[in-house]
Amino acid sequence: MLGEIIAVGEEVLSGDVINSNAAYISSQLSEIGVFCRFHAVVGDIEEDIIEQLDQACQRSKCIVLCGGLGPTKDDLTKEAVARYLKKPLYEDLEMRAQIDSWFKGRHQAPTENNYKQALMIEGGEPLKNGNGTAPGVYYNHQGIHIFLLPGPQGELKPMFENCVLPRMNKNIDKSIQTVTFRLIDIGESKAVTILDDLMGASERLIVAPYAKLREVHIKVTSIEDTAKENEAAIQPIRDEIYRRLGQFIYNETDKELVEVVLDKLNKKNQTLSVAESCTGGLLSNFIVAIPGSSAVFKEGIVSYSNDSKIHRLMVASDLLKMHGAVSKEVAKAMAAGVSQTLETDYSVSITGIAGPDGGTPEKPVGLVYIGIKTPETVLVKEYNFMGSRQKIREQSAKSALIDLWHIL
Amino acid sequence: MLGEIIAVGEEVLSGDVINSNAAYISSQLSEIGVFCRFHAVVGDIEEDIIEQLDQACQRSKCIVLCGGLGPTKDDLTKEAVARYLKKPLYEDLEMRAQIDSWFKGRHQAPTENNYKQALMIEGGEPLKNGNGTAPGVYYNHQGIHIFLLPGPQGELKPMFENCVLPRMNKNIDKSIQTVTFRLIDIGESKAVTILDDLMGASERLIVAPYAKLREVHIKVTSIEDTAKENEAAIQPIRDEIYRRLGQFIYNETDKELVEVVLDKLNKKNQTLSVAESCTGGLLSNFIVAIPGSSAVFKEGIVSYSNDSKIHRLMVASDLLKMHGAVSKEVAKAMAAGVSQTLETDYSVSITGIAGPDGGTPEKPVGLVYIGIKTPETVLVKEYNFMGSRQKIREQSAKSALIDLWHIL
Repeated sequence: MLGEIIAVGEEVLSGDVINSNAAYISSQLSEIGVFCRFHAVVGDIEEDIIEQLDQACQRSKCIVLCGGLGPTKDDLTKEAVARYLKKPLYEDLEMRAQIDSWFKGRHQAPTENNYKQALMIEGGEPLKNGNGTAPGVYYNHQGIHIFLLPGPQGELKPMFENCVLPRMNKNIDKSIQTVTFRLIDIGESKAVTILDDLMGASERLIVAPYAKLREVHIKVTSIEDTAKENEAAIQPIRDEIYRRLGQFIYNETDKELVEVVLDKLNKKNQTLSVAESCTGGLLSNFIVAIPGSSAVFKEGIVSYSNDSKIHRLMVASDLLKMHGAVSKEVAKAMAAGVSQTLETDYSVSITGIAGPDGGTPEKPVGLVYIGIKTPETVLVKEYNFMGSRQKIREQSAKSALIDLWHIL
Repeated sequence: MLGEIIAVGEEVLSGDVINSNAAYISSQLSEIGVFCRFHAVVGDIEEDIIEQLDQACQRSKCIVLCGGLGPTKDDLTKEAVARYLKKPLYEDLEMRAQIDSWFKGRHQAPTENNYKQALMIEGGEPLKNGNGTAPGVYYNHQGIHIFLLPGPQGELKPMFENCVLPRMNKNIDKSIQTVTFRLIDIGESKAVTILDDLMGASERLIVAPYAKLREVHIKVTSIEDTAKENEAAIQPIRDEIYRRLGQFIYNETDKELVEVVLDKLNKKNQTLSVAESCTGGLLSNFIVAIPGSSAVFKEGIVSYSNDSKIHRLMVASDLLKMHGAVSKEVAKAMAAGVSQTLETDYSVSITGIAGPDGGTPEKPVGLVYIGIKTPETVLVKEYNFMGSRQKIREQSAKSALIDLWHIL
């Protein structure tokens, strides 16, 4: 089934808000076999919403509009959809009561414009919003499923899961299975060259590569009548991908590299600490973002000054003077120091020049040293990254995880 | 002038990649007076690209297509645009030489499909790509400015700045000025209610609110013939916004809250350290992301375990036993401890329950304590955040900056 997403809002058109709703909705829909062929963003202009909806209805069977359900006069999505469907709006008393109770729960009073959100499209089904005052709408327009959802992600996501997925699941006759192979140490174009003959070979078995931060993902999607048929279709492709690229695959489930690394340490009953200079907490942040990481991760030190490297990480001041803070020697001492101070089995250190200033001909912006201390030894790798300060910092933190994965 | 963005790529349609290019391009174009009324995303399908481009040419004078310039047979943007314009493709020898030299510089050899990227649209102007192998194209189609840019942001952004902006600047007759007022301690809907009569009042003076992470931005855009007229148009609105909302405005330039906080500390010649539990380095990361933060920020400790809180932050183990790690008392001890250990003037501590597990009726998920140690005292605030683990962590780190700003 084809799907389509129409985001409504000047803040998206102006670039003040990134349209991450579209990515979320597409990826969720594709899991149940609804594939998006178009995304659109339009402003808070009734004619534009109607024009886009009209085109979508000619192409797609599942249309999700998000945004424009707020209480202000700029919020026009319901009005536009009602006009397109030639249906009147009416005030839904249950939704009005919900708005009252939402404000009451916060010891606030609704203003008159809040009740605009209780207006519903005749013939449509109101969708409750547990995290805000804007209810959504579901409308079945001659077999085309039209959903109106609020724009804020904290409201949209639960409503998508509770209201859109169950309604669409009833209307899908195909089964879908997706497997993602996660690769490191290989670039996208090389992976594509190696898998070229498998891509685009079938419309029911789709092999697609995606470049990620220092990773490549190969996503295999099978669309058959049953789950069993999907498994049978995927198995030979899986074997072939492993035969050609197995050495680069670190995982084929939805686990990120950081989770795989934490799992490995957890199984070994080993602990981890990190000492970060240029990445300034980014690696710690990747780790702590994973629920349960506390079983492995003991502590991180963001050691941004030389003073801190000397006092907290016990890096000899002579070493700093002789080689500079961004050097193989200091990376090694930082990893050893943090491991000793914090008494962990493994440690990671990162020191580098993230720019935009601070580079020299000998030590240019992008030069980064990553140290890994294992129970046996300390290893250091040198990297030369390109890009912005943020890009260099992200690549550094990710590379530290890749290095750690190799060692484990 | 109206603009329009067409992103091309299955990875965007599938939701594997968020369309942040569109946000970047829109926001850059709006600075020079090109306002986007539509964004679209289409897949690697020639007919879809052509259909979208045809519609865009009927509506807009500046069209940016991004993505689909890669070396694989799936990359069809140039082919589609050439077909729409009824122009042939030819191999541009200079671009071919650039591809050769790009690979040579990396001690690699191009494959035959790389040369597909040297194909250019007859009558168009090749746009050099300093950070990759895909050149762009500029085509003036009966006064409509069409740009083709590669999808990866590290390539797109410099090409946009070097190739698109100078060409468009020549074609704009209006002057634009934008001022953003950055507010904290007030919600979007309240700010909108207060400014309601100023919004939508004029097409040449646009007042628009945007909700950000624990901030609200009020963007005022003036479109007049000269910079002087813009300044004259903005001044009365600025005065009015300050009169109504001045107490909530922390800044009216492009500086983020973290930069304003660092500037304040820097001017006072004061230093900062942080101790993070549930945010796990996120606050340190916000700080270190700012170039030059090392003048103020000395060190961060990601103190995820009780052990670390005891040994590194000198939190009394009795305090942890009596009140638990997530408590007002421990937040206070963490802030005092990190300040003392690291010898900084100011310190921030964050301890909380980010979830999804670990909550109890007394201490639910979302409960966060933030401590601020000043040279005089230690202050602690209690927060109850809602949302996912990531959301709670982001709100916590941001609130710590807001608290610090208030104190400074």
